[in-house]
Amino acid sequence: MKKALMLCLVLVLFASFAFAEEAEANKLYGVTDDGLLIFKSNDGKFKFELDGRLQLGAAMYMASDNELGNGTEVRRARLGLKPTWGDWSAQFDIDFSGNEVEVKDFWVAYNGFKNLSLTVGNHKGQWSMEEVTSSRYITFMERGLPNAFAPDRRIGLSAATWGKRWRAFAGVFGQQSGDVDETGENEALNYNLRFTGLPLLGENKFLHLGFAFGHVVPTAGSGDTVKFSSRPESHITQSKFLSTGKIKNVTSWDEYGLELAAAVGPVLVQSEYTWVQVNRYNDKPNAKFNGYYAFASWFLTGEKRPYNVEEGEAAGRIHPVSKCGAFELAARYSCLDLNDEDSSKIMGGKGSNVTLAANWYPYAGLKFSVNYILVNNDKYSTGGGDYTGNDDFNVLQFGAQLMF
Amino acid sequence: MKKALMLCLVLVLFASFAFAEEAEANKLYGVTDDGLLIFKSNDGKFKFELDGRLQLGAAMYMASDNELGNGTEVRRARLGLKPTWGDWSAQFDIDFSGNEVEVKDFWVAYNGFKNLSLTVGNHKGQWSMEEVTSSRYITFMERGLPNAFAPDRRIGLSAATWGKRWRAFAGVFGQQSGDVDETGENEALNYNLRFTGLPLLGENKFLHLGFAFGHVVPTAGSGDTVKFSSRPESHITQSKFLSTGKIKNVTSWDEYGLELAAAVGPVLVQSEYTWVQVNRYNDKPNAKFNGYYAFASWFLTGEKRPYNVEEGEAAGRIHPVSKCGAFELAARYSCLDLNDEDSSKIMGGKGSNVTLAANWYPYAGLKFSVNYILVNNDKYSTGGGDYTGNDDFNVLQFGAQLMF
Amino acid sequence: MKKALMLCLVLVLFASFAFAEEAEANKLYGVTDDGLLIFKSNDGKFKFELDGRLQLGAAMYMASDNELGNGTEVRRARLGLKPTWGDWSAQFDIDFSGNEVEVKDFWVAYNGFKNLSLTVGNHKGQWSMEEVTSSRYITFMERGLPNAFAPDRRIGLSAATWGKRWRAFAGVFGQQSGDVDETGENEALNYNLRFTGLPLLGENKFLHLGFAFGHVVPTAGSGDTVKFSSRPESHITQSKFLSTGKIKNVTSWDEYGLELAAAVGPVLVQSEYTWVQVNRYNDKPNAKFNGYYAFASWFLTGEKRPYNVEEGEAAGRIHPVSKCGAFELAARYSCLDLNDEDSSKIMGGKGSNVTLAANWYPYAGLKFSVNYILVNNDKYSTGGGDYTGNDDFNVLQFGAQLMF
Repeated sequence: MKKALMLCLVLVLFASFAFAEEAEANKLYGVTDDGLLIFKSNDGKFKFELDGRLQLGAAMYMASDNELGNGTEVRRARLGLKPTWGDWSAQFDIDFSGNEVEVKDFWVAYNGFKNLSLTVGNHKGQWSMEEVTSSRYITFMERGLPNAFAPDRRIGLSAATWGKRWRAFAGVFGQQSGDVDETGENEALNYNLRFTGLPLLGENKFLHLGFAFGHVVPTAGSGDTVKFSSRPESHITQSKFLSTGKIKNVTSWDEYGLELAAAVGPVLVQSEYTWVQVNRYNDKPNAKFNGYYAFASWFLTGEKRPYNVEEGEAAGRIHPVSKCGAFELAARYSCLDLNDEDSSKIMGGKGSNVTLAANWYPYAGLKFSVNYILVNNDKYSTGGGDYTGNDDFNVLQFGAQLMF
Repeated sequence: MKKALMLCLVLVLFASFAFAEEAEANKLYGVTDDGLLIFKSNDGKFKFELDGRLQLGAAMYMASDNELGNGTEVRRARLGLKPTWGDWSAQFDIDFSGNEVEVKDFWVAYNGFKNLSLTVGNHKGQWSMEEVTSSRYITFMERGLPNAFAPDRRIGLSAATWGKRWRAFAGVFGQQSGDVDETGENEALNYNLRFTGLPLLGENKFLHLGFAFGHVVPTAGSGDTVKFSSRPESHITQSKFLSTGKIKNVTSWDEYGLELAAAVGPVLVQSEYTWVQVNRYNDKPNAKFNGYYAFASWFLTGEKRPYNVEEGEAAGRIHPVSKCGAFELAARYSCLDLNDEDSSKIMGGKGSNVTLAANWYPYAGLKFSVNYILVNNDKYSTGGGDYTGNDDFNVLQFGAQLMF
Repeated sequence: MKKALMLCLVLVLFASFAFAEEAEANKLYGVTDDGLLIFKSNDGKFKFELDGRLQLGAAMYMASDNELGNGTEVRRARLGLKPTWGDWSAQFDIDFSGNEVEVKDFWVAYNGFKNLSLTVGNHKGQWSMEEVTSSRYITFMERGLPNAFAPDRRIGLSAATWGKRWRAFAGVFGQQSGDVDETGENEALNYNLRFTGLPLLGENKFLHLGFAFGHVVPTAGSGDTVKFSSRPESHITQSKFLSTGKIKNVTSWDEYGLELAAAVGPVLVQSEYTWVQVNRYNDKPNAKFNGYYAFASWFLTGEKRPYNVEEGEAAGRIHPVSKCGAFELAARYSCLDLNDEDSSKIMGGKGSNVTLAANWYPYAGLKFSVNYILVNNDKYSTGGGDYTGNDDFNVLQFGAQLMF
């Protein structure tokens, strides 16, 4: 009997040992967070997440004076890898839509100091809350018209620091990852600041205020130009009705943004106002443009958009509470004014869009969208003469998005 | 003694608990299916498969009156990801061969209804069994000449339903994923039906019959054209001897396909006949073209090609039964007739290929191929005047394919 | 009591069985090697490694007579997959930097014979030790000037065999993976041999000697040309000061390389001498060029670069011994002479670079670099007339590299 007991103990110890062996520090385990693929090492030092994104769109253009081309598209085809090792994290994110490659988030960050993140590589400047919000998490199929002012990701350095109710960001950036300068000129330089605060932050509500500033010195010589332009809030047509054209003799430009967002339970309202001043040499007058938007979103099924203080944004995955998924209704008014009658006389057009949206999230990784857009363009909205102005038309568009 | 026993029990329970903890619903385990990488969650809801494909080719052209350029190529460099979450599955598949990006299978499907699959995104229309068969599973290095009629993947919606001995497919498609239309015209529309049945289906044999129909309305304006063309069944040369050139004034075209496949043990025979009618306006006469092929394949080592009723195809991985791998011999005759003497007088050439093939599969993920092709072109097979017609030549080509 | 004991045993057996079930042959486990992601099957037959590479650079050009363009870049954006199944291994490696695709290592190898590796696919010819060394492992931000002679990866066949103190490599190659030849000419052919030996090999030191030979027959017709050119050892500027221009009427060219490397503890010295002879027809005189470099590297923190006899190179990951990471100082002198006064009278310029480097490896997967380069160009170093010659300038550049 004693022997049997000993045997039993030996077996148990052996099993425990076997199990312990499996729990070695550098061994990995995998988990899924509603369809995401994540690996972590037992010691917590290593983490690896796949961040795939599949976005499809289809659009119908109605009652337009121009030919806008009903059709379909692969909106985004994104393969992102997010490795972490100890205090170091990184992102390797490539887009393949349109059968073209674009290096997107491509950086290394150090997070070893408390409430501080230092980043080097290709990443977004922060001139607008909507721009900072990942395309996975935006409420409408496209960002609002004022996004015309948002710069693309650029290669640079930035620092972000935050407390419980605030966040500050500063960065300096060079060129976009894909630019290859053949002219021999030095790269453009972008300086960027953003500050966000939360005067109100409760379990079920928040009030977010933000201010952002950007200063850009473009490449000298033939590169001293800037152009602001925008499609209506639909990506399948190629028609950028609103466009300043290439503004020449540019010394620099300054960009300012004000942000407001507030949520109570499943209801979110968000608004931004952005204005730009382009400074020019050769006695050319400065140019001024602005844009704004406001939207409201309501989850009929009760979910709420999470607030992320480390990023200064109301964004994140929506985990449906019911088996049928989450339903969201939303409406947005946005306006972009590229007419500068007062100073430079550049008349790039003024347009406004009213968008009604319905989203269905069968699970946290999948979203189907319908957007109906009422477009209102003034007579200068001709894309520099390519299109008939004063074109007021409607768009019905459908979207599908998978995060994996 | 009792204490020792209690201790023993506690240890066992602890071990069991530890094991149970590992079996949490959202935890993943990995398996390999002969070289493939697959992750599944413990609750079976999540599945993730990597679908990589590496294809290399080398070809020698003999006794040609034209210069065809012996050489090598990366035939396909495919990175595919196949995530599944509950009833939803998706594919994210990109090709990088030729140092260019092409978005391939890129869709989301719902499989929550019994024997029914609903798909949205970039995927193949089904006008031919050989086209539907993945390039991983085709018997010869290239598909047969009539594949000239097969449309590429397009963005669209489709439904497939099946029983034990039949399958029906219907789809409507827009443009290809990489097309960006600058003209403002509406996209082309493709309608597609396919029906397959299995009058005979046994353990060791099957008889497959199929019929497919496609109707295409091209883009209006400058896009109202169509062109059918084909290389010989070798991809390294760029010479498309057979070519209708751009046919203009096209209202629509209709495509018909008949399929037959039969297998007994390790022997498979397969044949298709495809014909096309191009409808034109401006009193232009219609144009008619056709093509067909037939092949036989024999696994000397006894393996057999699996039949997949959900896809309506005789295709799948070959798991060698012996340690030395599987050996396959195959022969194909194919013909493409792009001469339309009766109606439109378009003389795009008529060609036929006899291909002898030997395949070696060291394991299910790897295949080495040798193809010897006897090409017979008529005098109209000049690629629109670029090449010397009546060119009868031979091709010796080698292929290597890894699935991982 | 007996029953309790039986119960205990049953539980133990059940637990053991559960564990055994998990140890099924085709089940996978994951490990990380300092930030790398690796999966293996329990039976050891399957292995899968991710080989991601993120490289960023920034450069400042000082005191140049030309405009060289300070700026930043994504130097490499590499996604590599390394699957293994039994005796077969493969690599699938794509680069996305500059928003362009380039198929890099793309091959299948058989390793079933002892000390022998047979490879088919797109891979590097071996004309130089520095070229063979992966860009992950090179000491300086860029390879030395003589790398101008190194051919890119090409599609081909090669065999490598090795003993404890030697290695031999032979290969025959066609074109680069991305080339698509429209001319109908046969592809170029590259023949390549390399032999390396280790007269000295101890625990803490080695002496490596190598000799390499390459013979290239270019495409006939319009493709019978060759061009050797080089930037200074900085990649952000596009200015290739040193350039032979397109040499025409080329029958073939021969390339020779001598290698020497020696290490004692944390100190490594490495040097290569390469010379090229271009053979031409139409009574054109042959052309001869050469280049060489020598560098010394010292790990202040005591790490040493591993020697890999299977690859014939002193390269590998640096695992820091201290918590603060590894620090390396290095200096290199390199020279490229594209002036051929004696024979062909081609005067492509002669330049030399002195580079001082400091590297910090916070952990094995991450490296930050500073390089300071003193460039010395002769009067012929004008990039074929595009730049001012005799330009002696300095470069300060920063690099960041993540392997994951």
